[in-house]
Amino acid sequence: MDLPYPSLMFLADVDRVSAKTALGVAHWRPEACAGQLRLEGCEVDLGLPDMTPSAAKAAGARSLLIGVANAGGYIPPHWEAVLIEALEAGLDLISGLHTRLASLPRVRETAERLGRRLIEAREPDPRFSAVGEGFKRSGQRLLTVGTDCAVGKMYAALAIAKELKSRGVSADFRATGQTGIFIAGSGAPIDAIVSDFVAGAAEVLSPAAGADHWDVIEGQGSLFHPAYAAVSLGLLHGSQPDALVVCHDATRMAIDGLEHFPTPSLAEAIDLNIRLAKLTNPAVRVAGVSINTSRLTPEAAATYLKDTAESLGLPCCDPVRTGVASIVDALLGGPAQRDAA
Amino acid sequence: MDLPYPSLMFLADVDRVSAKTALGVAHWRPEACAGQLRLEGCEVDLGLPDMTPSAAKAAGARSLLIGVANAGGYIPPHWEAVLIEALEAGLDLISGLHTRLASLPRVRETAERLGRRLIEAREPDPRFSAVGEGFKRSGQRLLTVGTDCAVGKMYAALAIAKELKSRGVSADFRATGQTGIFIAGSGAPIDAIVSDFVAGAAEVLSPAAGADHWDVIEGQGSLFHPAYAAVSLGLLHGSQPDALVVCHDATRMAIDGLEHFPTPSLAEAIDLNIRLAKLTNPAVRVAGVSINTSRLTPEAAATYLKDTAESLGLPCCDPVRTGVASIVDALLGGPAQRDAA
Repeated sequence: MDLPYPSLMFLADVDRVSAKTALGVAHWRPEACAGQLRLEGCEVDLGLPDMTPSAAKAAGARSLLIGVANAGGYIPPHWEAVLIEALEAGLDLISGLHTRLASLPRVRETAERLGRRLIEAREPDPRFSAVGEGFKRSGQRLLTVGTDCAVGKMYAALAIAKELKSRGVSADFRATGQTGIFIAGSGAPIDAIVSDFVAGAAEVLSPAAGADHWDVIEGQGSLFHPAYAAVSLGLLHGSQPDALVVCHDATRMAIDGLEHFPTPSLAEAIDLNIRLAKLTNPAVRVAGVSINTSRLTPEAAATYLKDTAESLGLPCCDPVRTGVASIVDALLGGPAQRDAA
Repeated sequence: MDLPYPSLMFLADVDRVSAKTALGVAHWRPEACAGQLRLEGCEVDLGLPDMTPSAAKAAGARSLLIGVANAGGYIPPHWEAVLIEALEAGLDLISGLHTRLASLPRVRETAERLGRRLIEAREPDPRFSAVGEGFKRSGQRLLTVGTDCAVGKMYAALAIAKELKSRGVSADFRATGQTGIFIAGSGAPIDAIVSDFVAGAAEVLSPAAGADHWDVIEGQGSLFHPAYAAVSLGLLHGSQPDALVVCHDATRMAIDGLEHFPTPSLAEAIDLNIRLAKLTNPAVRVAGVSINTSRLTPEAAATYLKDTAESLGLPCCDPVRTGVASIVDALLGGPAQRDAA
């Protein structure tokens, strides 16, 4: 995917959870970000200069990237003026939402008139239009799964892939969502794929590889999310993970946006993911637990991680606060491996 | 959906499992079928007169219906000549496959030139493009689920809806696949819906209704199918079934087309479906078991049904051989209900 970076990061008027695309790209690919554009009511600050589209163009930006992942993936009407202003200022548009930029008549007409590109990460790709076959593929695979959506599955996968590479292990991060795709430059937009082909797409995304190679696959949704569990299960079956890392937000009490659904315990999430993953890989195991403790004090976070590790008997870390070394140790067979690499 | 019936049923060169669309329409909506068209190697006979497209047109047919549901839902190149012959003979085309008729250049050009309709049951519908919300809806819902695909989930649902109506109960069959949609004239092509929206589509398909109304929802795939479990789980969560009917083929030892995956036991299928269904309806129960015994002798079938009913403690029937009265009895609270209706 040829992405015209750097981008002006468009944050619209959303909160931190919905701004995860912009936050992810700014953290993992900072050189892709020229500045930020926020509307009134926006609760997020990337720490980048606030810019109009014209100012961003003058500063070298090549595109405006919609840095938002809202529920339903739609573009509300009041964003259109900014998109058109960006096109008129000389920027291409990059979006990973379900609503296609090209489906908005004024946006499409302006882009056509000015010769700008409309780049859509969720556009169907013929490579991901086949049913799964369930055959075991060579190589090692890790999938991050979650007690909910937006609990850090992408962050954990990126951190684990980075840690593996830093130890000399052959590893690839495999993106499955818009943010991951914008960071990696490729991937499968798994929740935009026709449901019949979800498992098949996951098989294609993580092809047969060398016996010691690790594909670190970004999880999506949660088996406990009443809207998105289908996405999670297809990805779980098609990925055939050898190892799972279970992700959780320490302070999330209810499923994001659905307050009538409590988040499951980590033990429940582990049990159900393992049970379902065994269909396509009976040898699946849990390599560790990744916790987002950002809303806890450092002391409370340390206690939470220690207690969770003890009660589950698994490595437990917060990728931001502690790094993921303990999970990668377990993955590779204990700390001795680190010295060998 | 305005379907130009009667149709010439196109069976191509497939076996009975893949011909389930034609078999279903011929059984449940016989007046929609003018004749059949088979290619060399076809293993199926609907018991209808074999006709060329021209002969079908002369006999009053208005369309050719592709009566095939093959793995992947594709149109192989060697079917195209028949499709073009049908258009030239004056027939519209009806398809429920993933491959769109309009994506085949020669078919599209011929249809445009002659003014024929290309009707696609799997075309996306904006009604089914929203994420699920998980709120409980009024009314009663039954979902048929299966140990595999193509084990009789649609047949069981149609038979149960018919039996409910015959007892004076308000009931609707809710179609989720191409065959069911061709029979009912409406429905949601659930496996062609973007994975993010599967549960949401199931919510829309079965809206709030009167407290005594039953929606009888056609299941899709199986939680135990490595390619299609995502479809099944989204449908299960969005349907929020009060009752499940678990469907099984008595002689199926392996998942259809994937011989390295054994079919689960009925007990396993019940346990996993109930566990996952509880997320959106904690009161879900199993109303009965529906077995396809078509490959057993009458004596072996009777023994199989009796043994299964005893071991599971549930009504167990073969909709074709025994009808579904025992399941509907259990659904409505015992045989006394029948007299009351």
